[in-house]
Amino acid sequence: MSLLVFGHKNPDTDSVCSAIAYANLKNALGQEATAYVLGEVRKEAEYALNYFKVEKPAILESAAGKDVILVDHNEYGQSADGLEEANILEIVDHHKLGGIKTDVPLMVKIMPVGCSSTIIYNMYKENNVEVPYEIAGLMMSAILSDTLIFKSPTTTELDKAACKELAEITKVDMEKYAMDMFKYGTSLDEYSIEEIVNMDFKKFDMEGKNVGIGQVFTLDTDSVFAKQDQFLEYINGTDFDLLVLAVTDIIKEGSYLLYKAPDAVIADAFKVDAAQGVFVEGCVSRKKQLVPGLTAAVKNM
Amino acid sequence: MSLLVFGHKNPDTDSVCSAIAYANLKNALGQEATAYVLGEVRKEAEYALNYFKVEKPAILESAAGKDVILVDHNEYGQSADGLEEANILEIVDHHKLGGIKTDVPLMVKIMPVGCSSTIIYNMYKENNVEVPYEIAGLMMSAILSDTLIFKSPTTTELDKAACKELAEITKVDMEKYAMDMFKYGTSLDEYSIEEIVNMDFKKFDMEGKNVGIGQVFTLDTDSVFAKQDQFLEYINGTDFDLLVLAVTDIIKEGSYLLYKAPDAVIADAFKVDAAQGVFVEGCVSRKKQLVPGLTAAVKNM
Repeated sequence: MSLLVFGHKNPDTDSVCSAIAYANLKNALGQEATAYVLGEVRKEAEYALNYFKVEKPAILESAAGKDVILVDHNEYGQSADGLEEANILEIVDHHKLGGIKTDVPLMVKIMPVGCSSTIIYNMYKENNVEVPYEIAGLMMSAILSDTLIFKSPTTTELDKAACKELAEITKVDMEKYAMDMFKYGTSLDEYSIEEIVNMDFKKFDMEGKNVGIGQVFTLDTDSVFAKQDQFLEYINGTDFDLLVLAVTDIIKEGSYLLYKAPDAVIADAFKVDAAQGVFVEGCVSRKKQLVPGLTAAVKNM
Repeated sequence: MSLLVFGHKNPDTDSVCSAIAYANLKNALGQEATAYVLGEVRKEAEYALNYFKVEKPAILESAAGKDVILVDHNEYGQSADGLEEANILEIVDHHKLGGIKTDVPLMVKIMPVGCSSTIIYNMYKENNVEVPYEIAGLMMSAILSDTLIFKSPTTTELDKAACKELAEITKVDMEKYAMDMFKYGTSLDEYSIEEIVNMDFKKFDMEGKNVGIGQVFTLDTDSVFAKQDQFLEYINGTDFDLLVLAVTDIIKEGSYLLYKAPDAVIADAFKVDAAQGVFVEGCVSRKKQLVPGLTAAVKNM
């Protein structure tokens, strides 16, 4: 019976690419295996699949009664429906242990590294299996994604080494490729101004003032600022006393701010020379940075 | 902080030897680590430790608050008291997944092989660490024990290969060493005749007859049969209508029978030329073989 290989629900790039790469390794070792996903592939992974000309895996509806291999997760809650009635043969992951129980011994390889594809790449090496061009491309994409080009604190030397060796196979410029992938993955093209402002929006009462804070994560900041006037028109047209939209760039580790507020309040809140679109270095968390900063500044108003 | 390495409660040879071998590997790789056991070391492991002149690990009372590595198990119920409050850094095992949860990613290496020491030996190889003579001896002992000299159905080619390579380091005759270890481990020297008969004894009502069946696992059958007359005197002196003592040799995969019963019943029950001490090939299970055979024969009485 063919083995089903899949990552977690709401699949990220690592879950998609690790499933394909591990199914391919199994095939190379003589075992029939097929990669699946547990939901729609997001745009970032779509970029990698398109770039390396690999077809999207099919969506798995239920794992019940199947021989399965889990990659990039090891918890029932994150996994396929029917997993309790599946035969789990292997787990390859880089997350904390999630409490799965089995009836029989299995192969489990969990390592505290930044990306599942790093582990899978090393399994290719252990088994002396050559990594095909397109599989190298997918594993490289996964590592660049999970480690944010090695900026994430979860990054290890093993991730860096694996990614560099994979980049030698694909012959692409890792950094440029990653930025293009992130830009495509976080593109806001499909959304209206109203949708972007309200994508992740919360309301606060600060000293009786009605305050709204929206945040979007994107590397596609150009397309936001090309429409800066339209954003401000919409923001200023709202009923909020103060409104801040943070356009957060996780690679630059900071946020660009568009706001309905006196410049002095933004200057006080974030210690910057306030102007529309100002970049606030290090400001990436609404809960830990945006809200406390604004709350203090409103008190000083 | 030093790492604590330990196997399961009621430690068998693999749990003792794997803990020592893995702590030694960690030391060789520059990490301070100490092997512990979760209870008294049994005679079989004691034989291995004495033979290779390695000290017994200390007994661990609680794992709470410690940095720990689990070998040869991965279930809370089998592990150290206080494990929920320990910091589990690694798991090396060959059993089914037991449902442990952690807060952070860790290293987990579980393989469906016959013995944990097989995995640990391969980790020495992966890390290019030379296996010291006495550590080779302990890992070899563990593999021979867990696989019953490769007779257990859990045995894999990886176990055989590891054990043979370890035997080359120790320069001992594996088979002879294993038999001596098993004999020592299953020695009945410390027990009286009454204790041996009643060690694992069950009573049954078969067609109104009062039947008792005792079973002991030992390779030290010589010492039983040297006292055959005394065994029979004790057995015949009991109130049972029928009594069978099965002296089971798991290497020969059969049982020697001493009994209070007509020879004809034993002959009928087990299809043998009945005589005191007769060997019944393939008979190793009381539930599946001894009880059904006797029940049928009693009906024919």
